[in-house]
Amino acid sequence: MTRNAQKPLLAVLAGEARTPPPVWLMRQAGRYLSEYREVRARAKNFIDFCFSPDLAAEVTLQPIRRFGFDAAIMFADILLIPIALGRKVWFVAGEGPRLEPFDPVNFEQLERGKVDEILSPIGETLRLVKPELPDETTLIGFAGSPWTVATYMIEGGGSKDRFSARVAAWQNPAAFDGMMDRIADATAEYLVMQANAGAEVLKLFDSWAEGLPEPLFERVIIRPTRRIVDAVRAAGVTVPIIGFPRGAGTLYPRYARETGITAIALDTSVDPDWAQSVLPEGMPVQGHLDPAALRAGGAALDGEVDRLLDSWSGRPHIFNLGHGITPDVPVAHVEQLLARIRNGR
Amino acid sequence: MTRNAQKPLLAVLAGEARTPPPVWLMRQAGRYLSEYREVRARAKNFIDFCFSPDLAAEVTLQPIRRFGFDAAIMFADILLIPIALGRKVWFVAGEGPRLEPFDPVNFEQLERGKVDEILSPIGETLRLVKPELPDETTLIGFAGSPWTVATYMIEGGGSKDRFSARVAAWQNPAAFDGMMDRIADATAEYLVMQANAGAEVLKLFDSWAEGLPEPLFERVIIRPTRRIVDAVRAAGVTVPIIGFPRGAGTLYPRYARETGITAIALDTSVDPDWAQSVLPEGMPVQGHLDPAALRAGGAALDGEVDRLLDSWSGRPHIFNLGHGITPDVPVAHVEQLLARIRNGR
Repeated sequence: MTRNAQKPLLAVLAGEARTPPPVWLMRQAGRYLSEYREVRARAKNFIDFCFSPDLAAEVTLQPIRRFGFDAAIMFADILLIPIALGRKVWFVAGEGPRLEPFDPVNFEQLERGKVDEILSPIGETLRLVKPELPDETTLIGFAGSPWTVATYMIEGGGSKDRFSARVAAWQNPAAFDGMMDRIADATAEYLVMQANAGAEVLKLFDSWAEGLPEPLFERVIIRPTRRIVDAVRAAGVTVPIIGFPRGAGTLYPRYARETGITAIALDTSVDPDWAQSVLPEGMPVQGHLDPAALRAGGAALDGEVDRLLDSWSGRPHIFNLGHGITPDVPVAHVEQLLARIRNGR
Repeated sequence: MTRNAQKPLLAVLAGEARTPPPVWLMRQAGRYLSEYREVRARAKNFIDFCFSPDLAAEVTLQPIRRFGFDAAIMFADILLIPIALGRKVWFVAGEGPRLEPFDPVNFEQLERGKVDEILSPIGETLRLVKPELPDETTLIGFAGSPWTVATYMIEGGGSKDRFSARVAAWQNPAAFDGMMDRIADATAEYLVMQANAGAEVLKLFDSWAEGLPEPLFERVIIRPTRRIVDAVRAAGVTVPIIGFPRGAGTLYPRYARETGITAIALDTSVDPDWAQSVLPEGMPVQGHLDPAALRAGGAALDGEVDRLLDSWSGRPHIFNLGHGITPDVPVAHVEQLLARIRNGR
């Protein structure tokens, strides 16, 4: 048996259905853990925190020590790529990320070839984490997908409906698509660097894939994702890639078939019966418990865990949330979740 | 030929495919019109504006005079029902609605039977508008759906992901569903009153139907909507009802089949090919141009109009946006849209 075959998460990504399924949680290294908040307080701001390999490695390992999750996901942020592209990014406490708003017509001003240099601390985080992990734990690297990253770059931060980014995509397709290619190419370099630093799985977060009409979804979600996957493979990286086009709705099957990803992460709103019937046969899925059910706990949490286990029975499945864990979740609810998955009902 | 049969919008809602399709725009009475801003400035706040039948009737008629849309939708707001339930609602300029946060465990404190009294000015708006409309123009009344209204009541305003409302729905189903019944019953009374005041079509806006797992969608979207439709029909009201569960994604077909609505309004993200194959045969659809394409104008707007006309050819179709028109849309873009629909490519 190879070392990889011993890891439940890699076995599932290779097409094997496991009972119980491997489990990890989006944002498992996060504020719901007191030990995270203690380490976070040592960094002077959020960006510095991401760029401090010792601190980032420590919080990456915390949820593994406490819960024995089947995967550790490197601690970082999806908005590091804009920094590598020469954009300024900062975080306002209690509000979220801020960027200097960027007009896609200026896409040729975006930096190229600085990824390895500027984001080298993230590789260092992976190198620090890897030897500390239990043999059965898989190390995941990640990046934001170009559309999601572009919405923050154009809007200057989070926004209710990414309206300015959509208008820009409609108004000047040549400039917009040029910008997307720059972001995609930098993202591919970043992911290759992560794999070379020890990441055994790569995940692409397209957190704002929702609400797009089909022609835009094709242009800003499918095409750039395909470009990244192709570039990563062309660089000789063979690790599984999980795609997460959150909110893709009826367009999930197209994303699953046309981007070249290995596995698809689903959001809370996806009807499993529908997804079972339309996703490519045997493609591993990840997800997709409602974080609000985890926050609620009790019978609702047990019921939703059981429903998802039943729904995905027989398909290679990685248990996860449909969105990140929220800071207000009691640790006891995470323990309840894990007991329900691992020990049964 | 009856008067109704002469109105293109009612013909489509009766199952007839029209070329070109009738067209109106969500939030067509809105800030993108200078004449709207002029009237809006006469009211001391947004709630007073909604409760001033002369002002509300005037802004309802403005887009009909300017563009000859096929429908006038009464000017009001989805957050008037909480007022009828005894909750305080106010609007903060530039920010949006505010409410005193409500805990569903207190649902028995919600007022009953005050709808006709408190919301009578909305009936008056309809009575003022009706005789002023051209013969071919249909008058639409509306309400927010219980889930969407409940999210504002619980969160105390808009929120990024309606998280507190979802947690409440999971944690205390009995209280939550009791609250939903109260909201649904008040909403049904309100819609019956609108029909009696002259509304020829009723629309239910479930603006926040997105992101719900199937069991919650069943409980908070389908069941309360069915309750409203049943109550409206039991009161002898026979006008068509358009349902708009925005963001329902793969659950649109269940909503279309199980709520008793006449027609389904679709959001921007719905793939028309998929929807054609899964929606009930012959059910009229409304939608669903990206408001960002309308803002962009030019070739993108023409292309998207053509795509939607082609996609829905042969099905009873009301052309509309997939979400409300934004305040920054030039009037010339609305004119371009109408010319493209009515005069062809």
